[in-house]
Formats: sequence, structure tokens, C-alpha cells
Amino acid sequence: MGLETIQSNDKSLPELVAGQITGLIADNEYKKGEKLPNEFQLAQSLNVGRGTIREAIKILVSKNIVEIRRGLGTFVAEKPGLVDDPLGLGFIKNKRKLTKDLLEVRSMIEPEIAALAAERATDSDIEKILEACQAVEDKIHKGETFEEDDVAFHKLIAKSSKNQVVLNVLPVIHSAIKELVEVTNAGLTEQTMRTHRAVADAIAAREPEKAKEAMLAHMLYNKEYLGKH
Amino acid sequence: MGLETIQSNDKSLPELVAGQITGLIADNEYKKGEKLPNEFQLAQSLNVGRGTIREAIKILVSKNIVEIRRGLGTFVAEKPGLVDDPLGLGFIKNKRKLTKDLLEVRSMIEPEIAALAAERATDSDIEKILEACQAVEDKIHKGETFEEDDVAFHKLIAKSSKNQVVLNVLPVIHSAIKELVEVTNAGLTEQTMRTHRAVADAIAAREPEKAKEAMLAHMLYNKEYLGKH
Repeated sequence: MGLETIQSNDKSLPELVAGQITGLIADNEYKKGEKLPNEFQLAQSLNVGRGTIREAIKILVSKNIVEIRRGLGTFVAEKPGLVDDPLGLGFIKNKRKLTKDLLEVRSMIEPEIAALAAERATDSDIEKILEACQAVEDKIHKGETFEEDDVAFHKLIAKSSKNQVVLNVLPVIHSAIKELVEVTNAGLTEQTMRTHRAVADAIAAREPEKAKEAMLAHMLYNKEYLGKH
Repeated sequence: MGLETIQSNDKSLPELVAGQITGLIADNEYKKGEKLPNEFQLAQSLNVGRGTIREAIKILVSKNIVEIRRGLGTFVAEKPGLVDDPLGLGFIKNKRKLTKDLLEVRSMIEPEIAALAAERATDSDIEKILEACQAVEDKIHKGETFEEDDVAFHKLIAKSSKNQVVLNVLPVIHSAIKELVEVTNAGLTEQTMRTHRAVADAIAAREPEKAKEAMLAHMLYNKEYLGKH
């Protein structure tokens, strides 16, 4: 008996049920982070056996659509459907080239994002961006690590672009880069402070072109630095 | 008995085995599209029971790392780990805004891609791009649908950029757009022919800035058109 006996590509009942539950989540019937009805209730309302629900939940867990919290129940994931390494980047063999390609994509997207942020940021967004910019500077002056604040700064800008696709794509690229290179910007403190500040000020002044150029300069420093290390 | 009894977040043995097999695939031990050893052989070489292998394979199928071909066996997927809707875009509620956001991201990436293609395309790449450009024109002149050739044209340019991340990201964005809007470019034939040709010629002439501008013009026509329909 070979592996071909396990399960065919045709949809099984649990897969169909998993699809139904996914549909309910997508339609906001069950919201992000919300607890799902228990196995018994789901079985009743979807008119299938509890074994089928159990299998369906396993499928949903593996796709990161729901998550099981031990002793608490099954919950809709905070970012449903966004799996680890969703783009299969881990399967790209040449890690050096992958790093270069990731940085290249970042350089394509983030300057445009900065320009959009300059157009669309609310006053509250701008306040937070300026605060995050200051937080990085403070950490640098104290000689502390600032990677987390750095990521927060870029995330706030992405959020201010008001583009949801960007918000889903960028973390994938950032985390892939983080896994590949040890991102110690220790050698880049001066440039980081200067270019971050230029980006933040341009967004605050609502000058898209300036924001784009400043972010591009920031990306180029990073690229150059990582190329050397 | 609630759902919490099903499976905890701690890794189960099948999950660990699935991770092991994923590692072997990532390390090219098993290559894309290649047949995996059968259940019995896998159980022996990984030193676990066949039931565990069976569960592990189910997990790998749901993650699109392997696929089962009925009667033939289990094969490494052609694009391992790239699941349907990997960015969870289907979970974004406002479909009109999602369409706009997707087109916006396309406008960020594709002009830069065209510029890179102008720098990096091989002679053979250029030949194929020009052929694809011609194929679209021929279809338009015959009054036939040209969506497939259109996608092929953009894909060849992405391939010529030699950026693997772009090659993994773009199909996700293209297919998400395709699901949301009925992409009949019927009303855009003149602009499509003209801007495609300008992109292809600029790449063939190895002029990155021109290629970028032409692609941007192409994107703007599409955006404007889709905004109206």
C-alpha cells in the first residue's frame, strides 16, 4: 500500500466543512480573535458529525485560520489565513540571492508607501510616526538596541498608507529578511537617525515626493551596508 | 467535550515529521515535482509509524508542500508552500477597497520590474517578450480574447527582472485581482497595444527609465479603466 491510498485531491467532507467555516469567518460571522462555537454546536449547525468537525478544525489550524488555545477553546486567528512563510520563500535555495531580492522588493515598495503616507496619514498617525522616530533616536543615544522601534517606525508608515495589501505583504518581507541576515544596524546609527527623521518630517509636512526620496535614501544605506556585511 | 480537546498548539509527532519532510524538500533532498518515497519507506527512514506518516502527509497537503496524484503517489508541489491566497486577502472585508489596494501595489512594483528587466533580460528573454507582445496584438486584431497572452507578457517581464521574490509575489496579486474584477480589457485594446509595445521596445533597447515610464502609463490606463467599470 503506497501513499496514494491516503487521500485524493478531491475535496473530502472535512475539507468542505473547513471551507464552510472559512466562509463564515470571511463573512464576519465569526470575527478575528473571537471564540468559535464548540465542536458539538458546530456539528449541529453544520449538520455533520463531530469527527468531521474535528478534522475540519485540524485543517483550519494548519492553514492558520483558527487557533486552539489549550483549555479555552478554538479561536479565529488574529491574521486569518496568513501562514508562516506564506510565499514559500524558505524554498528558494540561494539564500544570498534571496536576501538581495528581498531588499530589492523592499526598495520598490517602501518609498512609494512613504509617499502615500504623506498624502493619507491622519494627524494621529503623524504624531505616532514622529514618536517612533524619536524613540529610535533615544535608544541610539543611550546605546541600546533599537531594532524593535525601527520595525515599529516602518510599520506605522505602512499603516498610514491606508493600503491593506501592503500591510499584509510587508511583514512577510521584513520577517524573511530578519531570518536571513542579522540585522544589527549598529554601524548605521547616524544614517538611520538622519534618514528616518527626513522621512518622518516629509510625511508630517505632507510632501509625498520628499518622503519617497528620503525613504529611498534610507533603503540604499541599508542595502549598501548589508551588502558589505 | 469542547473543541479544546482536539489538538493543542504544541507540536504533535505528525507535525514534527511534517517539519522534517519539509526540511528535506527545502534542502533539495526531494525536488519540486519529484515523487516522494512511499509511506512504508518514509516510515522506515524517519523511524516512525505509518499512521504518523499518513497524518504528516495530510498536513503537508493542506500546506501545499506536497500533492497526492490519485494512483500515482505523493509528489513535491511545483511551488511548494505557496498556498491559495497566501496573504489572506480573502479575509479583507471591503472588496472595492481591496481591488483599489491591489492595483496600487501593482503600480508600485511593475514599473520597477520593467526597469530591472531592461537591465537584466537575456537576449532570449527579450525575444520572448517581443513574441508575447506580438501575440497580444494578433489576438486583438482578430477580435479574440487576449487575457492569457496579456498575463504571459507581464510574467515574462517579471521573470526577466531575475528577482525571485517578485516572481512569488506577483501571481498572488494578479490572481487576487482576477477574482475581484472581471478583467475584460476589451475597451482598452488601443492603449494596451500601444503601452505594451512601448514597454517591450524599451526593454529590448535596454532603457530602464523608459521601460518604467511605459509600464507606469500602462498601469494608469488600467487603473482608470477599472475605476470606471
